[in-house]
Amino acid sequence: MPVSPSQDSYLVGLIGSGIGPSLSPALHEAEAGRQGLRCLYRLIDIDALGVGPEAVGDLLRAARDLGFDGLNITHPCKQLVIEHLDGLAPQAEALGAVNTVVFEDGRAIGHNTDVTGFAASFARGLPDAPMERVVQLGAGGAGAAVAHATLTLGAGHVTVVDALPDRAADLAAALNQHFGAGRAADAALDALPRLLTGADGIVHATPTGMAAHPGLPFPAGLLRPDLWVAEVVYRPLETELLRTARALGCATLDGGGMAVFQAVDAFRLFTGREPDSARMLAHFAELAGAPARR
Amino acid sequence: MPVSPSQDSYLVGLIGSGIGPSLSPALHEAEAGRQGLRCLYRLIDIDALGVGPEAVGDLLRAARDLGFDGLNITHPCKQLVIEHLDGLAPQAEALGAVNTVVFEDGRAIGHNTDVTGFAASFARGLPDAPMERVVQLGAGGAGAAVAHATLTLGAGHVTVVDALPDRAADLAAALNQHFGAGRAADAALDALPRLLTGADGIVHATPTGMAAHPGLPFPAGLLRPDLWVAEVVYRPLETELLRTARALGCATLDGGGMAVFQAVDAFRLFTGREPDSARMLAHFAELAGAPARR
Repeated sequence: MPVSPSQDSYLVGLIGSGIGPSLSPALHEAEAGRQGLRCLYRLIDIDALGVGPEAVGDLLRAARDLGFDGLNITHPCKQLVIEHLDGLAPQAEALGAVNTVVFEDGRAIGHNTDVTGFAASFARGLPDAPMERVVQLGAGGAGAAVAHATLTLGAGHVTVVDALPDRAADLAAALNQHFGAGRAADAALDALPRLLTGADGIVHATPTGMAAHPGLPFPAGLLRPDLWVAEVVYRPLETELLRTARALGCATLDGGGMAVFQAVDAFRLFTGREPDSARMLAHFAELAGAPARR
Repeated sequence: MPVSPSQDSYLVGLIGSGIGPSLSPALHEAEAGRQGLRCLYRLIDIDALGVGPEAVGDLLRAARDLGFDGLNITHPCKQLVIEHLDGLAPQAEALGAVNTVVFEDGRAIGHNTDVTGFAASFARGLPDAPMERVVQLGAGGAGAAVAHATLTLGAGHVTVVDALPDRAADLAAALNQHFGAGRAADAALDALPRLLTGADGIVHATPTGMAAHPGLPFPAGLLRPDLWVAEVVYRPLETELLRTARALGCATLDGGGMAVFQAVDAFRLFTGREPDSARMLAHFAELAGAPARR
């Protein structure tokens, strides 16, 4: 190994674009401090550095050489990073996307804690939700991760809907290949009313509801009280979709749980120690609830 | 700036060759902890990385991009690093060598705390030592730094002796240029008996006395009780030279003070906070005194 990190410390960072507002440094550093570990979590913003997404390979090697223990990777580098890794964990390989890299004896191993993070959040927040028929809106990077998670959790069938039909078709095909034929299908946006009529719940995985994309991702009239609603957006924690669904009596899951559990799982991978997920959830709620951070 | 470090943390490292046994990580991390700062100090060993000394420029840029607050630089990179810096502090510029780099608003500024560290150690350990005529044995990198320090402290005249006559002549010429003509001279090794007869003290700045180079750097018979002896070697803290000189009644200064005060000065540069030098000296004595670390 090129470095000799202390046993009681870890050095990690996040590579991506526009990551200034990330809560990951605060979440990791605070939990580490409570466990008696010294942790530094650095933001490595490719925009601020003036480099393109393809620089992720050089940044990864530099981080390994300079004694980082691991990295989180986010948009737009989650796929690009793969060719620079020495190995992939099964979830990351299945998804074709990496959000966590761990340096082990000089080797860089890719993981995906978006998948495990959403699964943990769902299992905790909607433990009794029926999952025979799930509709998912959004087939981008987050959508791929959460679809893998819901099928891993035992969803009977997931129908993927996206404004880009090819993207929905590609994701459905990949899901069928990985989980077995007949577990997933794609559909056009205008099929949403019919699909939701027969569904147990919907996973929302588009940016609608974020500050920059306010509003509802689909008409409120499509909701009904016995449809559960799982949200991926976590800024704000209460999106218009969640507010509307809760008012109607729907069981809901906000996006904060996925954000926290991906960090919980990354913390475990980085340190080999079990983080206190309840403490991290509480810290996240405090950070995300502060108006200035929304 | 490409990074957004927390106010209460700092990330630094040491670039050099064969630095595995360095005590700098322990010194910095412990003092930071006592001050309520989270500090990680990483060892970036060019031998372990399989790169040459000229890689220091790439490593420096990578450290800046990945959110390091600064670096220490040691053999064999102290001169090579200069061309990659955006500015030099006066001590570093005068010496032509840098052992500390601070990243400030994206700029890399070079400092030399070997000079200030030896000066602080000397002023503390031999406060009343006469300095009219000083002899220095050793004109390498450490020798250049300590000669700058003794002349800065007000030594009247320094005669530099080295097994390589050219190296001694070059250092003496550089010293005369910086401190004024007549402040320094060079001499051959066989002039040492005559030089010491008329000297107030001797600074020893060769590797002799380290575990790999045991013994005395010159015959014990050249010592006398009214000659002070300042040592640069600090592994072991008590070299054969110091042991012999103390037995004879000489005032002595071990190399630990320079090692600690260069770290004290680097800590101040990295953090903007005043370290507790007495605490760092005590910690160093504890670390260096342990037989396994000698």
